[in-house]
Amino acid sequence: MPALRRRQACRQTRIEDLTTRNLKITLEYDGNRYVGWQRQAEGESIQGLLEDALAKFEGGPVTAHGAGRTDAGVHALGQVASAHVSFTHPPATIGRGLNATLPEDIRVIGVADMPEDFHARFSARSKTYRYQMSTDPIGDPFSRRLVWQLREQLDLETMARAAATLVGTHDFAAFQSAGTDVTTTVRTIVRSDIVMLPAGPPGAPARFAYDVTADGFLRHMVRAIVGTLVEIGRGRRDAESLAQLLDGGTRAQAGATAPPHGLFLVRVDYDEESP
Amino acid sequence: MPALRRRQACRQTRIEDLTTRNLKITLEYDGNRYVGWQRQAEGESIQGLLEDALAKFEGGPVTAHGAGRTDAGVHALGQVASAHVSFTHPPATIGRGLNATLPEDIRVIGVADMPEDFHARFSARSKTYRYQMSTDPIGDPFSRRLVWQLREQLDLETMARAAATLVGTHDFAAFQSAGTDVTTTVRTIVRSDIVMLPAGPPGAPARFAYDVTADGFLRHMVRAIVGTLVEIGRGRRDAESLAQLLDGGTRAQAGATAPPHGLFLVRVDYDEESP
Repeated sequence: MPALRRRQACRQTRIEDLTTRNLKITLEYDGNRYVGWQRQAEGESIQGLLEDALAKFEGGPVTAHGAGRTDAGVHALGQVASAHVSFTHPPATIGRGLNATLPEDIRVIGVADMPEDFHARFSARSKTYRYQMSTDPIGDPFSRRLVWQLREQLDLETMARAAATLVGTHDFAAFQSAGTDVTTTVRTIVRSDIVMLPAGPPGAPARFAYDVTADGFLRHMVRAIVGTLVEIGRGRRDAESLAQLLDGGTRAQAGATAPPHGLFLVRVDYDEESP
Repeated sequence: MPALRRRQACRQTRIEDLTTRNLKITLEYDGNRYVGWQRQAEGESIQGLLEDALAKFEGGPVTAHGAGRTDAGVHALGQVASAHVSFTHPPATIGRGLNATLPEDIRVIGVADMPEDFHARFSARSKTYRYQMSTDPIGDPFSRRLVWQLREQLDLETMARAAATLVGTHDFAAFQSAGTDVTTTVRTIVRSDIVMLPAGPPGAPARFAYDVTADGFLRHMVRAIVGTLVEIGRGRRDAESLAQLLDGGTRAQAGATAPPHGLFLVRVDYDEESP
């Protein structure tokens, strides 16, 4: 509601606040401690903490819209929020101020001024998620909150072959959790890959990941795809069975939902080259 | 007390238990949740959890001696423990069983049979510690528990030059916390370097580290050296001032003790090539 927010801004005293400002805020976070992006009745949310931090600048309530409503325990390397505000600080000052207020597991990594009609979710052209996994039989104490540690051998080549069959425009209803009210379950996946990750220094998670880019995602869609890919990697399901779930399969025919802590919202892309 | 333990073992019923067995157990752990290696009256310790897990195999109490008594919040990539036991399971079975009992942030990465007189601490020839730091002004949500995030620029070249002056046999009393009762504060450092770490995948901590290998360490010695090196990196202290603290300096003349969560016991080396 930009118009409403603009009217609210007019009630401020300073002349430079007569028009509202539309901020794009890019965030990284470790989702382990949170109920998810979205503000809830109980528990701490990323949205709630960001809005509270913005309210300190604004001297009043601010609404932040997130590009992806990451679930409890899901992380972000490049979540994007948009918020109409009336304060006039330079972007770098806002970024430093927000980071001084936010807890250390949520970091603002970019602040930019955007046109009035930019909306983090509705303007998004595509989103990219990464789901981190490892097959290490012992497990790694340092990345256990950021990687799904499967502790068994998986056939990664077959998983990669299956993952590639998801590219294109399909009905992904078989990979959607119940309890949502979307108008269509058709989405377009432009990238769907198993990627090997370099072994990093201590604390580096993961040996491999599932990377997926689409114009939009249904509820728990990435985690349902990953759960199904893992069943393929275990040899309990054919690589070909994944494509058979598209355009008519049911949720019960797909695999279990993978746990949240391996999932990262990596990037959100917009039509125009946004800063 | 091998003799006492051998007598206890004789009270077991099985013939193969008549002689005790000396296990070398290599461990990785994330120290954030623990009071440290050493069993304490309050709180969970690595030693306590390992001894409890060994007691399940033994059917009675087991004492585990650690090579390094890591403090609360300090991690390990290669802590070594030794324990006299009487059970006869193969090493791989013991490793799997201990990992099934231990929490996910403590992992046994090696189990081997050793000669009767092997002792994790007294047989150690040298230990290597790594202290992870970053200068990233924003901070990284995923590695904040494994890296000292300094959030300011440091002169790493001057720090490296200062670090190198510690190599050799010196009195390190200036880098020892009070409250210990060691017979000598002389130690021999064979390696003392600032190393750049590769940027890994999400969750990878650190941009650089202080790596140090010595025949032994005094209480909080690595953290006191790191605290002093950081003051040098900030330009508040000359590179040359570090060497001046050796062989006669006092704790008050050195820098503050760096926080525990950046420190890892990386490796313990023994005279013979031990498995």
